[in-house]
Amino acid sequence: MKLIGLLGATGSIGTQTLDIIRNNPEYYKLVSMSSGRNIDLTRKIITEFKPQFVSVQEKAHCEQLKSEFPHITISYGNDGLIDAAVHSKVDIVINAVMGSVGLEPTLMAIEAGKTIGLANKETLVTAGHIVMDVAKQKQVPIIPVDSEHSAIFQCLNGESKGNVSRLILTASGGSFRDLTREELREVTVEQALAHPNWSMGSKITIDSATMMNKGLEVIEAYWLFGIAYDQIDVIQHRESIIHSMVEYHDSSVIAQLGSPDMRVPIQYALSYPERLPLQNGESLDLVKIGKLHFEEMDTERFPCLRFAYEAGKIGGSMPTVLNAANEVAVNQFLNGKISFLMIETLIEKALTHHQHIKNPDLLTIREVDTETRNYVHSLSL
Amino acid sequence: MKLIGLLGATGSIGTQTLDIIRNNPEYYKLVSMSSGRNIDLTRKIITEFKPQFVSVQEKAHCEQLKSEFPHITISYGNDGLIDAAVHSKVDIVINAVMGSVGLEPTLMAIEAGKTIGLANKETLVTAGHIVMDVAKQKQVPIIPVDSEHSAIFQCLNGESKGNVSRLILTASGGSFRDLTREELREVTVEQALAHPNWSMGSKITIDSATMMNKGLEVIEAYWLFGIAYDQIDVIQHRESIIHSMVEYHDSSVIAQLGSPDMRVPIQYALSYPERLPLQNGESLDLVKIGKLHFEEMDTERFPCLRFAYEAGKIGGSMPTVLNAANEVAVNQFLNGKISFLMIETLIEKALTHHQHIKNPDLLTIREVDTETRNYVHSLSL
Repeated sequence: MKLIGLLGATGSIGTQTLDIIRNNPEYYKLVSMSSGRNIDLTRKIITEFKPQFVSVQEKAHCEQLKSEFPHITISYGNDGLIDAAVHSKVDIVINAVMGSVGLEPTLMAIEAGKTIGLANKETLVTAGHIVMDVAKQKQVPIIPVDSEHSAIFQCLNGESKGNVSRLILTASGGSFRDLTREELREVTVEQALAHPNWSMGSKITIDSATMMNKGLEVIEAYWLFGIAYDQIDVIQHRESIIHSMVEYHDSSVIAQLGSPDMRVPIQYALSYPERLPLQNGESLDLVKIGKLHFEEMDTERFPCLRFAYEAGKIGGSMPTVLNAANEVAVNQFLNGKISFLMIETLIEKALTHHQHIKNPDLLTIREVDTETRNYVHSLSL
Repeated sequence: MKLIGLLGATGSIGTQTLDIIRNNPEYYKLVSMSSGRNIDLTRKIITEFKPQFVSVQEKAHCEQLKSEFPHITISYGNDGLIDAAVHSKVDIVINAVMGSVGLEPTLMAIEAGKTIGLANKETLVTAGHIVMDVAKQKQVPIIPVDSEHSAIFQCLNGESKGNVSRLILTASGGSFRDLTREELREVTVEQALAHPNWSMGSKITIDSATMMNKGLEVIEAYWLFGIAYDQIDVIQHRESIIHSMVEYHDSSVIAQLGSPDMRVPIQYALSYPERLPLQNGESLDLVKIGKLHFEEMDTERFPCLRFAYEAGKIGGSMPTVLNAANEVAVNQFLNGKISFLMIETLIEKALTHHQHIKNPDLLTIREVDTETRNYVHSLSL
């Protein structure tokens, strides 16, 4: 029985994690959780899963839930989020919160010796050097939850990392993979949110459309697997059937494939190193699919991927700027305040404006994050 | 340093094995070898690799080589082949001889505790139950050398066999994958020998064209991996880039990919569980390849695959009949004595004619093998 702390329980990854816990009550139990402002769903989750500790975003929601569930410890805000992550009974923390707010609870959970199932990309993008250092010291495994890194993690099973010659991340190409630069000028939020393969949260769906999602994944792969940027390739693969690959120095390539179903990587993070049967899992039917396509990534059309490689290679505080600028810009786009192509413009301006800081500590990262957000806000007013 | 016994040194797999030994003198040394009637190449190999023991097929060749290489032990025939397999200094035997003659040296080498690198399909097809039993008793690893089984073997790395739900063998479709039954009536030996992807020996190339090669692989997979026939699928994949796959019960599929290069599985069998860099190995370029195709196998057009499943499921002496009938029929086709479609007719007749024997011992297998060969010869006169 693994006791689970779930951060971001009401989101897309969160609810699918709950689905796996629901289907495997003999293996998993929800002990602590955090959620945002979706108080109705939070209430339902508490009723069904009976966690011992719950944290929500707002104090008012916290008070309300306290009166409804007097036998459960309920907290709120950043402190509550951290308490959910470090809860003494938790074995594994699934971090599925959105954005750089996910960093601190991850770090604290690692310090507390919890295994981490990481769906929050920003944790490694903004503070990979700190997180991986602490994880190494504490000998805590960090198991990726998103499909590409889970694929690579699975392809590394039983292999020596020293034999890896290349990681090959696949990219569906997102909602706009077949549009020209000219056509990208006119796209709407609704069009951007219509991802061809995956049903995900809105931030990550926009990131897929700008290709920043793949950029963040490249930086995440760099930290998770300790592979140089020059050995991380991205290719477009519109069917999202091959989720990613590892090439070894004997020129053998190991790939992980499957129908697009986020429950597979989520469950793998929970069951690792074992595998459990997936309820209602769809068996891959390659004959029905017929063809798999592979195309070169066009970083002229999608410069965000290039920005990510550049920021990653510079390192230090640069990926924090990349991520913070992207979060604000995507938010502005989702709120209808800027155009789609303005996202990349704002990110590029933020990267150019920033004075690179080597090896930043957590405080510096937080400052850079805030400064960048303010700067991008000021640009997009 | 691994000390190698190489059976079938002058064939396609044999010479590629030598290529790997040549490129990795710090890791591998040829200690014993066998060859057939290609005495010129045998001489060259002896001169270059200086093995301690050599066996050839004919006594006359043996005498000739003895006079030329007085410091090397040289033998011949079946006894010589077995002596090469059980040579006291050998750590791993690569069995790359053609046909069911490969069975006895494999068994003897396992008895002698040698690790087996198995390129000889017939060993497991004709006597899988005996070979796997002895290997289990002696705790000797049998590492597959052909590309499909090596792929599956690699995809099982670090995984629990109990979690496997399906093996998916890929088939290029061979030389005649795009022909109708009607067109198959007229095909020549030369057309059959023109395999679209792989450069291999002539027997296996014809087996690829009839799809019997895939049938033998299904039976081999059944024995190697202990997976039921109903859980072994074959799909046509004309590019031969995905060499085979394993589906797990969480619906995750692990695949091994690469440019068609037999040195990869051969070297993996030698280096397992490590991987060594492959000299002049071609890095997989999926963007250049562009598309991978998957089609259903047509067992109406290629009944040999169906025969193999049926013979495998019946078990006992049936796969021995399948294999012996196929060997004779393919030989007759290669010698211009029968038409291409007559191969399957002869095999079907032999299978129908045979009275199935449960759990045959080695002597019975040899008798069934001989009877079948005689029967098929009598039919094709």
